[in-house]
Amino acid sequence: MRFAVVHGPNLNLLGERQPDVYGDVTLEQVNQALTELGGELSVEVETFQSNSEGAILDYLASIRSRVDGVVINPAGLGHTSVVLLDALLAISLPVVEVHLSNPAAREAFRRHSYVSSAAVGVVAGFGLDSYLSGFRCLTNYVRRSRD
Amino acid sequence: MRFAVVHGPNLNLLGERQPDVYGDVTLEQVNQALTELGGELSVEVETFQSNSEGAILDYLASIRSRVDGVVINPAGLGHTSVVLLDALLAISLPVVEVHLSNPAAREAFRRHSYVSSAAVGVVAGFGLDSYLSGFRCLTNYVRRSRD
Amino acid sequence: MRFAVVHGPNLNLLGERQPDVYGDVTLEQVNQALTELGGELSVEVETFQSNSEGAILDYLASIRSRVDGVVINPAGLGHTSVVLLDALLAISLPVVEVHLSNPAAREAFRRHSYVSSAAVGVVAGFGLDSYLSGFRCLTNYVRRSRD
Amino acid sequence: MRFAVVHGPNLNLLGERQPDVYGDVTLEQVNQALTELGGELSVEVETFQSNSEGAILDYLASIRSRVDGVVINPAGLGHTSVVLLDALLAISLPVVEVHLSNPAAREAFRRHSYVSSAAVGVVAGFGLDSYLSGFRCLTNYVRRSRD
Amino acid sequence: MRFAVVHGPNLNLLGERQPDVYGDVTLEQVNQALTELGGELSVEVETFQSNSEGAILDYLASIRSRVDGVVINPAGLGHTSVVLLDALLAISLPVVEVHLSNPAAREAFRRHSYVSSAAVGVVAGFGLDSYLSGFRCLTNYVRRSRD
Amino acid sequence: MRFAVVHGPNLNLLGERQPDVYGDVTLEQVNQALTELGGELSVEVETFQSNSEGAILDYLASIRSRVDGVVINPAGLGHTSVVLLDALLAISLPVVEVHLSNPAAREAFRRHSYVSSAAVGVVAGFGLDSYLSGFRCLTNYVRRSRD
Amino acid sequence: MRFAVVHGPNLNLLGERQPDVYGDVTLEQVNQALTELGGELSVEVETFQSNSEGAILDYLASIRSRVDGVVINPAGLGHTSVVLLDALLAISLPVVEVHLSNPAAREAFRRHSYVSSAAVGVVAGFGLDSYLSGFRCLTNYVRRSRD
Amino acid sequence: MRFAVVHGPNLNLLGERQPDVYGDVTLEQVNQALTELGGELSVEVETFQSNSEGAILDYLASIRSRVDGVVINPAGLGHTSVVLLDALLAISLPVVEVHLSNPAAREAFRRHSYVSSAAVGVVAGFGLDSYLSGFRCLTNYVRRSRD
Amino acid sequence: MRFAVVHGPNLNLLGERQPDVYGDVTLEQVNQALTELGGELSVEVETFQSNSEGAILDYLASIRSRVDGVVINPAGLGHTSVVLLDALLAISLPVVEVHLSNPAAREAFRRHSYVSSAAVGVVAGFGLDSYLSGFRCLTNYVRRSRD
Amino acid sequence: MRFAVVHGPNLNLLGERQPDVYGDVTLEQVNQALTELGGELSVEVETFQSNSEGAILDYLASIRSRVDGVVINPAGLGHTSVVLLDALLAISLPVVEVHLSNPAAREAFRRHSYVSSAAVGVVAGFGLDSYLSGFRCLTNYVRRSRD
Amino acid sequence: MRFAVVHGPNLNLLGERQPDVYGDVTLEQVNQALTELGGELSVEVETFQSNSEGAILDYLASIRSRVDGVVINPAGLGHTSVVLLDALLAISLPVVEVHLSNPAAREAFRRHSYVSSAAVGVVAGFGLDSYLSGFRCLTNYVRRSRD
Amino acid sequence: MRFAVVHGPNLNLLGERQPDVYGDVTLEQVNQALTELGGELSVEVETFQSNSEGAILDYLASIRSRVDGVVINPAGLGHTSVVLLDALLAISLPVVEVHLSNPAAREAFRRHSYVSSAAVGVVAGFGLDSYLSGFRCLTNYVRRSRD
Repeated sequence: MRFAVVHGPNLNLLGERQPDVYGDVTLEQVNQALTELGGELSVEVETFQSNSEGAILDYLASIRSRVDGVVINPAGLGHTSVVLLDALLAISLPVVEVHLSNPAAREAFRRHSYVSSAAVGVVAGFGLDSYLSGFRCLTNYVRRSRD
Repeated sequence: MRFAVVHGPNLNLLGERQPDVYGDVTLEQVNQALTELGGELSVEVETFQSNSEGAILDYLASIRSRVDGVVINPAGLGHTSVVLLDALLAISLPVVEVHLSNPAAREAFRRHSYVSSAAVGVVAGFGLDSYLSGFRCLTNYVRRSRD
Repeated sequence: MRFAVVHGPNLNLLGERQPDVYGDVTLEQVNQALTELGGELSVEVETFQSNSEGAILDYLASIRSRVDGVVINPAGLGHTSVVLLDALLAISLPVVEVHLSNPAAREAFRRHSYVSSAAVGVVAGFGLDSYLSGFRCLTNYVRRSRD
Repeated sequence: MRFAVVHGPNLNLLGERQPDVYGDVTLEQVNQALTELGGELSVEVETFQSNSEGAILDYLASIRSRVDGVVINPAGLGHTSVVLLDALLAISLPVVEVHLSNPAAREAFRRHSYVSSAAVGVVAGFGLDSYLSGFRCLTNYVRRSRD
Repeated sequence: MRFAVVHGPNLNLLGERQPDVYGDVTLEQVNQALTELGGELSVEVETFQSNSEGAILDYLASIRSRVDGVVINPAGLGHTSVVLLDALLAISLPVVEVHLSNPAAREAFRRHSYVSSAAVGVVAGFGLDSYLSGFRCLTNYVRRSRD
Repeated sequence: MRFAVVHGPNLNLLGERQPDVYGDVTLEQVNQALTELGGELSVEVETFQSNSEGAILDYLASIRSRVDGVVINPAGLGHTSVVLLDALLAISLPVVEVHLSNPAAREAFRRHSYVSSAAVGVVAGFGLDSYLSGFRCLTNYVRRSRD
Repeated sequence: MRFAVVHGPNLNLLGERQPDVYGDVTLEQVNQALTELGGELSVEVETFQSNSEGAILDYLASIRSRVDGVVINPAGLGHTSVVLLDALLAISLPVVEVHLSNPAAREAFRRHSYVSSAAVGVVAGFGLDSYLSGFRCLTNYVRRSRD
Repeated sequence: MRFAVVHGPNLNLLGERQPDVYGDVTLEQVNQALTELGGELSVEVETFQSNSEGAILDYLASIRSRVDGVVINPAGLGHTSVVLLDALLAISLPVVEVHLSNPAAREAFRRHSYVSSAAVGVVAGFGLDSYLSGFRCLTNYVRRSRD
Repeated sequence: MRFAVVHGPNLNLLGERQPDVYGDVTLEQVNQALTELGGELSVEVETFQSNSEGAILDYLASIRSRVDGVVINPAGLGHTSVVLLDALLAISLPVVEVHLSNPAAREAFRRHSYVSSAAVGVVAGFGLDSYLSGFRCLTNYVRRSRD
Repeated sequence: MRFAVVHGPNLNLLGERQPDVYGDVTLEQVNQALTELGGELSVEVETFQSNSEGAILDYLASIRSRVDGVVINPAGLGHTSVVLLDALLAISLPVVEVHLSNPAAREAFRRHSYVSSAAVGVVAGFGLDSYLSGFRCLTNYVRRSRD
Repeated sequence: MRFAVVHGPNLNLLGERQPDVYGDVTLEQVNQALTELGGELSVEVETFQSNSEGAILDYLASIRSRVDGVVINPAGLGHTSVVLLDALLAISLPVVEVHLSNPAAREAFRRHSYVSSAAVGVVAGFGLDSYLSGFRCLTNYVRRSRD
Repeated sequence: MRFAVVHGPNLNLLGERQPDVYGDVTLEQVNQALTELGGELSVEVETFQSNSEGAILDYLASIRSRVDGVVINPAGLGHTSVVLLDALLAISLPVVEVHLSNPAAREAFRRHSYVSSAAVGVVAGFGLDSYLSGFRCLTNYVRRSRD
């Protein structure tokens, strides 16, 4: 089993930008922790970050036949990108949406996510733990749906 | 460390009602699984279910001094109950909101939750795994905030 | 065949409160008339009134296996209670919604009903006749769906 | 006592169009059943169907002095026609609004009815039974208001 | 110079319907008074009433080359009819909109008029005087625009 | 009989400002024409213009016992001033609202008028004729209500 | 194969009314061009225009068994008529909606069309070409769905 | 004369919860102060607190014949409970609504109160003084309406 | 200690205008009663009324250093005046907002008050008692905040 | 004459993704068919697809002087991209918007298109035929505007 | 060349009120700085401040023939005053709107300005520099439009 | 001191596209003028333009440690891009937003800017002068905040 983990715009700054909101873990550490968890759960992991919506769409189109699920932190794109929603619908893979902080406790425009409507589930508010829990839940979800 | 797990209205019917939406695990099995996870993580667990908003408020008021965090599945009350929000604010404990299904993929009125704005984080869409992940994340959250 | 008739909050005051809006028939008289109509139509009747949303949910959960349909006057709860909607969906029984007065001719907030979307049909505006007509229609509906 | 029963646009197709939504009873059968019920209740019945809003207004203006009440299924006009509302207000007769299906369980634009605000009451969702119940309730309403 | 005076749906009931809202002048008296005023002002008058939107459109299309202006009381159609607006735009004649009562003092849905945006001006609230004033203003308007 | 004619803010610029929108008649000429019409109709006329909302309120309070009706062009205040509405309600005199241009054909924010809901009627779109027609209609209205 | 082409209100004025918006082709020329195209594509054509919503509904009900598809320019009715939508749903034929001008580039109220939600597709903005393209697309659509 | 003072959900936590928002007076002290004020003003006082909407409705139904007025702090229920509004309308007693803090200075959803529309008046923002002032005003109101 | 009492537009008409809504106490009597209450509570009182928003702003700017608090009845300005809100924020004094009637029971546009968000608290619905209670509460508020 | 055909994000997946919604024609086949149609109509064709909004803007800027019109399927960008609208306005070329499916029959957020307001016309719902019809209409449009 | 600089309500308190929001420069210093800048740029300057909307309208009407442009800080009036917008349109002079703070970063109701739609441009957020930049830009604008 | 000047999508077309809206200065001339102004004010300048949101985010992430402030013309992205807002928040530098034209005088969707809420200030409407004023104001802002 193999999962893709997709990090949306500005997440390259993780650990450096606004640590009071997003915590002080770097993106590399997040990827490291996911790879370790993948090892535990016998799931291969590939990771991808881009600030460009188009590059994310290209990447999603490219992974359709080689992965079994997607963990995505769409960052700000989740609130505005219909084409990201369309790409997730197009690849027909189970998707889990994760957020470092809890959007429900921030500005009103952060409460709507196009991505959510294409997702199996959502984990938000726990920093690195959002990724790890989402990954774990996706693993169970895929295993169960194969039984 | 001790957590309260609160199940909102109609969750007594879990496993019996609309299994296509909510799965076929019973409430007892959910509580059993959480108690086992608590054992693993050295967290004591108490559980509570009620169909009555008032009874939930009474329960929340009663646990303030004996627990360290709350995992709550507010069910339909999350969308409508300001007094539940007020009770969670009043007890000043870390709260994690969980949902069996993903509200973002259902009717529009299920997309807003008063509870979310008082929560550390949210896990939705993974059935029993929503509870287990939320519990695990809360454990980490409380431990980290004590360092 | 057996039906449950559920009266929502404040209907214990029927016949006493605002007779210009709700008429002067008492709740006891409504129940009496329904029982008589049940006799005519060979339908057993049980009735329930509570001011507590939670008690109504408990009652609905308890009748699932012993009744064949529900006539409910949700009163003000119809406009605000998602958990009542969820309970009605959960018990998977045919539901008829009745109102003494015609909500469309009152304040704007009385025009939306969560309950309606889970109901086979609605009768509003005819006082006691709303109950009797709803009961009659439900009888026909259940009989026809069994053919 | 004499009632007019008014069928709005497209109801000439009843029994032929979308039977999954509207049932398989024809308009002729509805009128037949109402006439029989009228016989039972000692109410004369006249019926009218038109696809034209203007023809319905003309008809309503013409019956003012010869009928004692109106049962109307406005069909789609109920959602959009202020002039139908005005005609019903102008003739100063008791009006009952009926619908074959339950608009609350369909598209959002079907939830508002101008006609409702001029109606004594509403019956929706029971096919032919909506007409019969509405007729019965109107009979009682008129008789009671004459006492 | 020749004007058409158009009376929308239900105005055939004028003087009979809701005299507290619309006064007790009949449509015939309105037409009589306008013809007299036309005589004074050297304006020929033709009048038209229909309950049918389509008939009004047909009439408007027919008068394009024989009249110099239109006084229209669109009644309830003003609030809902885009095709009436389109017909008035199509005939390219000066239009004055009149109302017997003052819509701004009635229900919210009576405050918007499609017709108004195609009108030179509006007179509302003065019963018969609304027609007479609108007629007089239209006369001046047409005369002035010919200088 | 005596009427007050009130001109709201910026109307001192009449005839000078935006003649394409408001025409080229000056305020003095409007007042002159109204005084002449008053002479014809045996109505005394006093006129008042101010750019200050407060001064208009003071003026309205002062005329309560000496006039029989008010013709007011509230200009932009009509859209925003609750206190002007309250002043008109307070003096309990018949009010006619007039506008030089037709607000329904301008920006959306010009379509709502607080003043309208306190007015007997409205005349809009005819320049000087709006004032003259409004004055004439008010005269008839007051005479008729005294019969 | 046989198609009905339906022209809504005011289209009898085509070529005469507002040529800057709608072009200078007459309705007769449109029908002529469609009949010729039908000849080329081996599709019989019947055409219908009415200013009356009711007459259009009557026509639609009458063609159900003799045509294979409908090209409709609903004109202003598209924005307001639920009964037209219901008629199109009732006849269960493939429908193509056409517009002479591009509603998206006009007033806001022209952007919503009830008809669109019952249509296979929409062509707007190309004058006569909207009809011809819609007709061609409908031909292909019906042929393909028969394979 | 006798007044009921009703405290809504979570007010049992008064003095303990969020003292920066609600102050540090306990519910017992509030009741004590009201009883003393009642003594001064010759008004008997009974007090009631519940977290359960249903229990509050039961209580309100029970006091109808033994009290002359109600001071109610609906807490969060004021924003959401139509059945509380209905209960207050049903008992036909003068009602004063009080709030410890000023809802207008908090979240947007706290600005609307169903209870307000059934209240003689409202006092908000003064902590214990809100109760005392409301009580005093209610006393005067009842006394004056008996003159 | 010294308080300013500010009466907004139209309150000069108090006791004369719409006594069914505002009562029959005159402004002079209100000021008299407040001065007496000030005497009891050892608070000096100055009062100010103006129909002019600008004059109220000038007055507020002038009192900053000589008073300790403001009781203001903004009348209709409360719903519309951002500059009044800004003036109250600018002077940095504790403000109490009072209303003679209960805006929550009147038109929708009276339910929002800019002033409320700058006020310590609000008293509405009790006529003269609104002023007296507001004054008393302000006195306590200022005294307590000085401890 | 030369046209550019622009395919927006995710259209590289055409024929592979959700064939029930978008059909089973591939992008290559669409381009092939357009080139053939171009041959028939003596129009040169160039085609462009990108998942990146920025790349589409770059492309549009580059073609200004070498093409005579643009056929664009903006896909999801049409609903969200103001910069795409601005680019289309900037290049001052006639634009035709095409959609494979009919957005009016899908989610509400798909009903608005920024692109539409810059387009000569729109064709939606006919799969490959949307492109072909749009291309044909654009050809006629450009030829006619050169006469 | 001569410019008028208009300061709206409460700006007389500049430098004294809320220095954290508005800075500590006084109005006199602003005027002084503008006069100096005027000297540099060969522009005469006159300044005006009033708390009264009416006085500002009077002032604007008076300067039409003696100035070449207006720099205006409308303060809170910008959000609410249609008559200020009308006055600026009436005088037909180039207008620049300035704000000390950045309204986009404050309450939602501060984001709309009637004045903006009549302004050449806007400068906000830079304290004294907003005035100076606006003045400089207006100078360039007027000079350029005279070439 | 060093500033980055960022030009958003389509600004590469400056001077060529819609000169009536955006003027005829080219992007190169803007950059030239800013560099000269930087020379005067002893501020180094670097400039960047891209049509790609992602490339702008990459650029912003790269300049964090080498510049002291950002002047940004977000063009159409300002209205739609949450990720641009997030990037500006992430880099924690003072930002000034500039626009060539005045968005408040254009379409409604151009009135909201995500960027504004992260900006120190805004300058709009003055073409090249918007950039120069924004640059100047930013220089002063940074210098002052270092004192």
